[in-house]
Amino acid sequence: MIVVMKKDYTSDDINQVVNYIENKRLKVNVSKGKETCVIGILGDITEVNVEEVQALKGVSKVLKVQEPYKKVNRLFHPEDTIININGNKIGGKNLGIIAGPCAVESEEQIVEIAKQVKKSGANFLRGGAFKPRTSPYSFQGLELEGLKLMEIAKQETGLPIVSELMSIGHLDEFMKSVDVIQIGARNMQNYDLLKQVGRTNKPVILKRGLSSTIEEWLLSAEHIMAGGNENVILCERGIRTFETYTRNTLDLNAVPVVKKYSHLPIIVDPSHGTGSSEYVESMAKASIVAGCDGIMIEVHNNPEKALSDGQQSITPQQFDKLMKKIKILSSLED
Amino acid sequence: MIVVMKKDYTSDDINQVVNYIENKRLKVNVSKGKETCVIGILGDITEVNVEEVQALKGVSKVLKVQEPYKKVNRLFHPEDTIININGNKIGGKNLGIIAGPCAVESEEQIVEIAKQVKKSGANFLRGGAFKPRTSPYSFQGLELEGLKLMEIAKQETGLPIVSELMSIGHLDEFMKSVDVIQIGARNMQNYDLLKQVGRTNKPVILKRGLSSTIEEWLLSAEHIMAGGNENVILCERGIRTFETYTRNTLDLNAVPVVKKYSHLPIIVDPSHGTGSSEYVESMAKASIVAGCDGIMIEVHNNPEKALSDGQQSITPQQFDKLMKKIKILSSLED
Amino acid sequence: MIVVMKKDYTSDDINQVVNYIENKRLKVNVSKGKETCVIGILGDITEVNVEEVQALKGVSKVLKVQEPYKKVNRLFHPEDTIININGNKIGGKNLGIIAGPCAVESEEQIVEIAKQVKKSGANFLRGGAFKPRTSPYSFQGLELEGLKLMEIAKQETGLPIVSELMSIGHLDEFMKSVDVIQIGARNMQNYDLLKQVGRTNKPVILKRGLSSTIEEWLLSAEHIMAGGNENVILCERGIRTFETYTRNTLDLNAVPVVKKYSHLPIIVDPSHGTGSSEYVESMAKASIVAGCDGIMIEVHNNPEKALSDGQQSITPQQFDKLMKKIKILSSLED
Amino acid sequence: MIVVMKKDYTSDDINQVVNYIENKRLKVNVSKGKETCVIGILGDITEVNVEEVQALKGVSKVLKVQEPYKKVNRLFHPEDTIININGNKIGGKNLGIIAGPCAVESEEQIVEIAKQVKKSGANFLRGGAFKPRTSPYSFQGLELEGLKLMEIAKQETGLPIVSELMSIGHLDEFMKSVDVIQIGARNMQNYDLLKQVGRTNKPVILKRGLSSTIEEWLLSAEHIMAGGNENVILCERGIRTFETYTRNTLDLNAVPVVKKYSHLPIIVDPSHGTGSSEYVESMAKASIVAGCDGIMIEVHNNPEKALSDGQQSITPQQFDKLMKKIKILSSLED
Repeated sequence: MIVVMKKDYTSDDINQVVNYIENKRLKVNVSKGKETCVIGILGDITEVNVEEVQALKGVSKVLKVQEPYKKVNRLFHPEDTIININGNKIGGKNLGIIAGPCAVESEEQIVEIAKQVKKSGANFLRGGAFKPRTSPYSFQGLELEGLKLMEIAKQETGLPIVSELMSIGHLDEFMKSVDVIQIGARNMQNYDLLKQVGRTNKPVILKRGLSSTIEEWLLSAEHIMAGGNENVILCERGIRTFETYTRNTLDLNAVPVVKKYSHLPIIVDPSHGTGSSEYVESMAKASIVAGCDGIMIEVHNNPEKALSDGQQSITPQQFDKLMKKIKILSSLED
Repeated sequence: MIVVMKKDYTSDDINQVVNYIENKRLKVNVSKGKETCVIGILGDITEVNVEEVQALKGVSKVLKVQEPYKKVNRLFHPEDTIININGNKIGGKNLGIIAGPCAVESEEQIVEIAKQVKKSGANFLRGGAFKPRTSPYSFQGLELEGLKLMEIAKQETGLPIVSELMSIGHLDEFMKSVDVIQIGARNMQNYDLLKQVGRTNKPVILKRGLSSTIEEWLLSAEHIMAGGNENVILCERGIRTFETYTRNTLDLNAVPVVKKYSHLPIIVDPSHGTGSSEYVESMAKASIVAGCDGIMIEVHNNPEKALSDGQQSITPQQFDKLMKKIKILSSLED
Repeated sequence: MIVVMKKDYTSDDINQVVNYIENKRLKVNVSKGKETCVIGILGDITEVNVEEVQALKGVSKVLKVQEPYKKVNRLFHPEDTIININGNKIGGKNLGIIAGPCAVESEEQIVEIAKQVKKSGANFLRGGAFKPRTSPYSFQGLELEGLKLMEIAKQETGLPIVSELMSIGHLDEFMKSVDVIQIGARNMQNYDLLKQVGRTNKPVILKRGLSSTIEEWLLSAEHIMAGGNENVILCERGIRTFETYTRNTLDLNAVPVVKKYSHLPIIVDPSHGTGSSEYVESMAKASIVAGCDGIMIEVHNNPEKALSDGQQSITPQQFDKLMKKIKILSSLED
Repeated sequence: MIVVMKKDYTSDDINQVVNYIENKRLKVNVSKGKETCVIGILGDITEVNVEEVQALKGVSKVLKVQEPYKKVNRLFHPEDTIININGNKIGGKNLGIIAGPCAVESEEQIVEIAKQVKKSGANFLRGGAFKPRTSPYSFQGLELEGLKLMEIAKQETGLPIVSELMSIGHLDEFMKSVDVIQIGARNMQNYDLLKQVGRTNKPVILKRGLSSTIEEWLLSAEHIMAGGNENVILCERGIRTFETYTRNTLDLNAVPVVKKYSHLPIIVDPSHGTGSSEYVESMAKASIVAGCDGIMIEVHNNPEKALSDGQQSITPQQFDKLMKKIKILSSLED
């Protein structure tokens, strides 16, 4: 961490900064120049409160040198984390292929889709029981009934279940029913929810917030890991920009960036990342080649009748065709 | 709502759309052109699922004509909503002046600040007991103890209390202790939390999400109002852009825009909206002149020792000076 | 085009809109509802001035149904455009591999790099003679001398030359020296420059502006094509977002989107799109798989001594390794 | 400037950085920590090429401590710059009130508007002769004829003329006809144009680019000042964000920020900053109170017939009403 003093700093100001830092048992290095003075702080600064330093008298700005996260940081955990869910691995060279409808609508629908995506090569079933909707008047999901229907689909196919948790009030049911808890983009900084899932050992897919930086996303993963749950899978699902031809802007740069800074697995959701079924194939293939650890695809047996996100869901036939291409791409040497 | 068909639509496609709409008891108007066909839907479309229509065969895009919110809409409620909190009004021509520290730190701190801001003209006391922090290693607030200290400050000054609720688990305590519940920017789309406060009659300040459009913000207010709670105050607190010289970009356009589309009061938080104490005065004054119904200002008696947000807090002396200017500006005829 | 009237519109207002449109010899369809009135305009609306309509009395908003571009529109030109530059094709199934240094620095540098990238499989040489720099104090390029050195490299290798034109004052020299004129991101809406290159028949690479929507980008291509020059290649190079771990956010969604809306070739520049040499390989591979018609890569034989963009340039050795992977990926059936 | 080394740096890497810096005759300070090494560079670093340093072996990142601009920097020029244009001053406590139509359309139109805005208190006349249009099929302005009509309006009213220059080919005509050259948002980084106006002594209004940071904007002003022209007025006109209810997001934070970092005058354009005539008054008033040095307002005597930007133009009557309020606000003590 670097503290840059204001032009008109006094020696008292410097002493105050130095004392503050030394009280944290960190080493300080003061360089005075003609125009300004720069104070370098070396060592583990995760417990220094940047805002406190920023507010000290005479301080112009504080520049970070080290990343502010620890448990998610590859620096302290060089090997890729591999998460094993009922024998299905995600991370390292293992791809998680997560497919299913946006929302669970009926037993027939979820079981049928589960069978079809399994046949094509999916190793996880996704399905929304509780749906976060911008409008209070839109379909909110089948709720607990939806979880039950997913359990039936799991019995029929053996596919582990991924579903989104929106309320700490439902954590107990999710612990029993689902294999992977999904935290949605809108809840990426719902710290209460992160804290609660951090106290379990259930694998968690943490979606990137619509306008969250990669650093904030990794810090939200740190919130979960700080509670003791190390089974975190990151999911890039598109960010909000000014572009209007697509629902979101899929940030595939995030794949190699996360691989550099963190050991956690990262998967990609091209369905939300583009918002349109006709772009899903291109972006799913691109994600695999960019080096991600899995993809999450919305598949619906009748997209035109889907109760939500129909326009971005592909059919089981399209998914099957996509999986054939994914298999070839993932078999190429890196 | 307007449905635009794809270039190669068939009459079957049109019939499917028309049937879908007529089943909702809405009127349809079909216009066929050389290149495309456009289907107009008139009437109250709040219960039409745009996504379902978008996914119908042959549909190219769906354009909204009416706003998707109802209870927050000025169209159906032309007069300004005025919210009365223990005799202090916000809305119409009544300004809410909400001041206090980012975080409650001690009895001495909160009582002292409360007394000073009251003397300068504040009519509400703000203070954070539970703090949403990007890093799990930062100070998380005094939690329930913080609420107790705010109650003491209220007893000493009579100022109603505003504090942020982060978890439905604390709703009961907030119902007892605080006068206005604040929903923070990161929880603007935490629908579980919105639903719970919507079932109470406690006034709610709903902060705009970091990257939320005004439409999404009004829809989040609709989530609260749909539950029966009509005491919603909107708070513009800056949005996320590419600019780095300021912490956020304060969107003052939102003031006249919200006034046009909604009857709800809108206040402005220039402390978060700029992120720097030296810009707070300019933006507080500009907010008032732009026509807002109140301001929320971080005030700390010792910003350099503040446990959070010290760099954007102003001192009681600066607040007093600001209030003198606010009084002159707010006394001018519109 | 759809015109939505304000709630309090009068019949005079409607007549004014109808007359305006009928004067343009277009068909009008008026649908009156309980709350509002919607006027549909069918036919070729490229000559209707949306702003004029928007400003008519009683008009609330104008919604576009058709895309506002014509010559770049795939609707009117279904086949892929293939551009042939000295026997090297870009578009359709033909990949343009454009490599070279950010800035031309010396004869030795440019000739050496040209030879190496050619050997690895590049079919175009890029090099900056005039450099757009944020600071007036940074290296501005060798200017006309730079163009001469590129011509020498072309003589030695046969590679056609791509270089950025920043001023209409240099158009004559560029017409003589270069094979493809590049219009940089900062000049994407420099309409004076677009108009001038539109009057030539020289192939043009039009980079997407830092914060330009795909629609604006296609409209800038339309500016060039409207002048008569149909040899336009689009280049996605990353857009500006709030993310700070990468220099730009590469928008690969743009590849299938542009393929849908336009017949023009689209290439991708992962060097600027990521801003860091360590991410270039992942994103170059992802671009190819997403379906682009070429890539533009910054290659420098000594990145640590490069006078500009060293941190995002890869070495000829890294480029050679990348090309081996690109060849495998591009040989896969679509 | 601070250079942060990678975790696995060698002493050779450090020596290379130190030599590089010392060759620029700057002072270096090396601090080695357990995890990393930080090298501070003190003194005037405007001539150090950040990119060259970034590309040196072993360098992880380069952090800026000082602002990269010099002539625009308030640090080296503490007093406000005041620009005198035919006796009308902008800067310091002097407000420039610039009003007129988006585009000059006829002698009658421009003379009539000029007379009316002068009467209400404007001291500059704006009018577009050359118009930058997203579509090549929109009205492009009356071009040189438009300049002539503005000169007539100047003769009739004495108001100095402000008009946008889009091409260096027209610089001579602008030097003769206009009093202030406007550089539009789309050309903010058209360095060729900046360089040419930098060689004149004509006052320049430099609009902020749609997605330009304040730092880039000040660097573009530095491009003009580096050529010798010190008469630069900055104009905030709204930036591009995800919000769609307004055309742009007016960034009023920019007013106090620019005042802090630069001595140049800053004016605000609420017409483009909101895109809607109904929001202009609120934002014009807010701009004045925020501390700007002037406003630029689109006024049209018949907005419904305006050939461009009609929806954001106010009438002379609305302008007159606005000016009465502006006069009161600007008469208040700061």
